[in-house]
Amino acid sequence: MNELDIVKKLQRLAGPVKGISLGIGDDCAIYRPRPNEELLFTADQSIEGIHFFPALAPAIIGHNALARSLSDIAAMGGEPRFCLVSLAVPSGRGAKFIDGFYRGVLALARRTGTSLAGGDLAHSDKIYCDVMVCGSAPRGKALRRSGARPGDLLCVSGRLGKPWGRRIQPRLELGRALRGRTTSCMDLSDGLALDLHRLALASGVAARVDRVPLARGATLERAVHGGEDYELLFTLPSRSAPPRGTTVIGNIIEGRAGVVMFRGKPLPARGYDHFTEG
Amino acid sequence: MNELDIVKKLQRLAGPVKGISLGIGDDCAIYRPRPNEELLFTADQSIEGIHFFPALAPAIIGHNALARSLSDIAAMGGEPRFCLVSLAVPSGRGAKFIDGFYRGVLALARRTGTSLAGGDLAHSDKIYCDVMVCGSAPRGKALRRSGARPGDLLCVSGRLGKPWGRRIQPRLELGRALRGRTTSCMDLSDGLALDLHRLALASGVAARVDRVPLARGATLERAVHGGEDYELLFTLPSRSAPPRGTTVIGNIIEGRAGVVMFRGKPLPARGYDHFTEG
Repeated sequence: MNELDIVKKLQRLAGPVKGISLGIGDDCAIYRPRPNEELLFTADQSIEGIHFFPALAPAIIGHNALARSLSDIAAMGGEPRFCLVSLAVPSGRGAKFIDGFYRGVLALARRTGTSLAGGDLAHSDKIYCDVMVCGSAPRGKALRRSGARPGDLLCVSGRLGKPWGRRIQPRLELGRALRGRTTSCMDLSDGLALDLHRLALASGVAARVDRVPLARGATLERAVHGGEDYELLFTLPSRSAPPRGTTVIGNIIEGRAGVVMFRGKPLPARGYDHFTEG
Repeated sequence: MNELDIVKKLQRLAGPVKGISLGIGDDCAIYRPRPNEELLFTADQSIEGIHFFPALAPAIIGHNALARSLSDIAAMGGEPRFCLVSLAVPSGRGAKFIDGFYRGVLALARRTGTSLAGGDLAHSDKIYCDVMVCGSAPRGKALRRSGARPGDLLCVSGRLGKPWGRRIQPRLELGRALRGRTTSCMDLSDGLALDLHRLALASGVAARVDRVPLARGATLERAVHGGEDYELLFTLPSRSAPPRGTTVIGNIIEGRAGVVMFRGKPLPARGYDHFTEG
């Protein structure tokens, strides 16, 4: 199988690409924006030994590689439009891995209305991939990290501290349902402690956490400082009712920007940060 | 230096981002399309040991990582708008490498009007990066691979067989100047033989090459089968004058789709294909 064969196969598997007037097989994919839409862009890497272990089924590796980027689209309240998937694999794992990987990508892509519009293929020592997703939101309606105000309710979807290696479920429906209702929103990729610190910093506020909904079998340490939950963390004006399936875990408070209090004590902004040594 | 520090530094270096209403530091970058524009998307990987050797200066690695994707925008006649840069580096090469790399990226980005809108940072065993570029073209005006017709002149820009490790210069001005003049266009990333085969296949035609403009010190083998030239390969209606700085190297002919004849003999479609073994 050479690159042309793989590209031809992907063209067939990807099917007709909604909204994409030119997809896989030319130098670029072409997208025609619709009137009044605002486009959201995110890219996330998935690296063997860092984000997953090579024993994980290729279809789950592919699913999660796309799911990580879709989670960012969910966090902004967007609808996914298309993705570009860049993949590098060791030559020894060639065709079979690529097949399983793209089956995982395409099953989730289909379910979420995301077209596979292109990408890049290469060889490397380890499995490496990077998925760019373009999403869409009505002009001015995308959710941001920066609008939380003292008094707001602090909420999360689902439960925290979930095991790694499962299929990540991006909260796309919830994200869209939150448009016009939240004051701020982001997804939990690096753990509640670090991500809430980031949200509070971006909003120029402090936050107080009173309780954390634990996943089955999770420790509190993992739920607070572990990564890869891909739930939504968001704030609502104080009198709002939190949507079904979400939990109020605390409040936004006055204080030094970025400070997070957990049951009365400051919570260190420690979680999954690739660039903190030690 | 942790991820927040790096992101803050990049926000400062990237400066105000033209056309991007929300850039580095939220879950997604936001782009507001302009009326009547068509958006072009491409992603290209640059991997240590495959696309470059680690001894290469970090600024050149960064420059070339962006230049590879800009070359695809040039091939479609687009103007670059913004890029997302995903980078993974070994922890031992951390801050200093990242600094040099982004200096290289940002210098070329500034010169070509490309905003750095976001991306992803991670650790890995080797240097790995993937650059997505979004470009823009007036609706319906993007150049494609698929319009070459028998009788057309076959042209390339510049000279072929250039040494690796130099700073790649994407042919953005030429690409824009070719809008409305070419019948097909692509960039030469994997060598003339393989890329011309792809163009001919996409257009459903054959091609004949009579001469090849050699770079200083290049062998004919390297000019025909080597990769990384990043010149434009394009076809013009037969009575056109080729633009300054480009050379007529042959013609489009009738024949089996994808066949390339070189000085009377079929040229094997062999070049830099990551997925051909041996």
